[in-house]
Amino acid sequence: MAMLHRSIAVVLVRARNPLNIGAAARAMSNFGFADLRLVTDYPVPFQDARSAVDAAAVLHSARLFRSVAEAVADCTLVYGTTALGDRRLEHPVDLLRDAAERICGAVLDTAVVGPGDDGDGSSSKTALLFGSEKTGLSNGELSHCHRLLTIPMQEGGVSMNLGQAVAVCLYELVRGSPAPRALPAEPVPATAEQLDRMESLLREVLLAAEYTARFPGNLGDTSLRRLMRRLRLPADDTAVWMGMLRQVLWKLRG
Amino acid sequence: MAMLHRSIAVVLVRARNPLNIGAAARAMSNFGFADLRLVTDYPVPFQDARSAVDAAAVLHSARLFRSVAEAVADCTLVYGTTALGDRRLEHPVDLLRDAAERICGAVLDTAVVGPGDDGDGSSSKTALLFGSEKTGLSNGELSHCHRLLTIPMQEGGVSMNLGQAVAVCLYELVRGSPAPRALPAEPVPATAEQLDRMESLLREVLLAAEYTARFPGNLGDTSLRRLMRRLRLPADDTAVWMGMLRQVLWKLRG
Repeated sequence: MAMLHRSIAVVLVRARNPLNIGAAARAMSNFGFADLRLVTDYPVPFQDARSAVDAAAVLHSARLFRSVAEAVADCTLVYGTTALGDRRLEHPVDLLRDAAERICGAVLDTAVVGPGDDGDGSSSKTALLFGSEKTGLSNGELSHCHRLLTIPMQEGGVSMNLGQAVAVCLYELVRGSPAPRALPAEPVPATAEQLDRMESLLREVLLAAEYTARFPGNLGDTSLRRLMRRLRLPADDTAVWMGMLRQVLWKLRG
Repeated sequence: MAMLHRSIAVVLVRARNPLNIGAAARAMSNFGFADLRLVTDYPVPFQDARSAVDAAAVLHSARLFRSVAEAVADCTLVYGTTALGDRRLEHPVDLLRDAAERICGAVLDTAVVGPGDDGDGSSSKTALLFGSEKTGLSNGELSHCHRLLTIPMQEGGVSMNLGQAVAVCLYELVRGSPAPRALPAEPVPATAEQLDRMESLLREVLLAAEYTARFPGNLGDTSLRRLMRRLRLPADDTAVWMGMLRQVLWKLRG
């Protein structure tokens, strides 16, 4: 995973809105990516964004470039993002999920550290290019790309927000990796013995409440047993339920 | 797909920032979802958000609720979102990708339209609950959830932006569905015959340029053939390359 994270550069081309640059940096921080590059003619939005959000480390190490060519000079795979739209595209276009597979494959292919390598294991970089909020990537900018990727969206919808597009792309890159920490598990279900004991107690309660006399048909051996099993009662909760039923039974018997 | 889209309600609980509500609505619009519900004590942020973004249809049909209970009353599956953090959670927690699988499964399970159904096929709803930007979902709000889901993130990172979290969750729900439109395909590679013709021409050029005399070792039968095939030359580009080589050859021969 660390290798994948080091192998990805996020390149924002002509991003105008400091909030969007901040949002992109925040998504990078969320998903563990650090290499942010901005292609811009003027340094203003970047400077504003530095203080805009709580992703200071990513913004602090971000680098400015005057052209796409300079920004991707060290990259062996350059992916442009596109909303498709009406423009005729001359590049092969992958769905995001397929692009992510290809990128992760490219990272693995170059994972062998050569003798002259400095040992950081990241001898090749993949750039993800995101265009300006208004116009996307121009044809000139697209010409630096090996391939394009697209986030599958509703046809005819509004364009996607830059920060959200970055978040979705980075999420897809890491979604296949192992969970970052142990998740709370499903509750352990009650055993058959616990269910049987509870069923017996419930029968006593229903008898004492005169439910049995009024609805005898509901209390056949199998119907009550199946009713109990459809509950999916957690083992840890049976003591509480049994306690409630016992109290009710005690009260019913006066 | 339409069925999945109709079966999901996005519920924002105590969202404070109009921009975030707008961003959530925009992501819903991008991915084709329409049922937005806001749990809020005061109508201000929602009203501001109505004009904030270009996702008017979703915002226009959004509904306000005073409590989580009212907001999810018609839902058969309620998923809360959590960043995990240090709090002890008593719910089972799924990674987003597993939650999406479960949600899509639940939609399919209830897809049979009963005789009393009004025919829209969406007899059950799944709610996705998102908490406030600052505090997430409270324990009281979580108690309305059947399960929790978490977006896998870098440990110790900053919290995720609300609009980005909504975008990532909705993307995961639709990522498995077919591409919304045809994608431009890979270029058709050159045939062996095209490659052979180009190889012959290149040999003539190299001979005329006296490259052959200086580096005879580079021009063995197999080495040049393999060099050509590593190019992955598209069929449609061979004519242009051949033209260039012919021109160079013409010039070299004076």
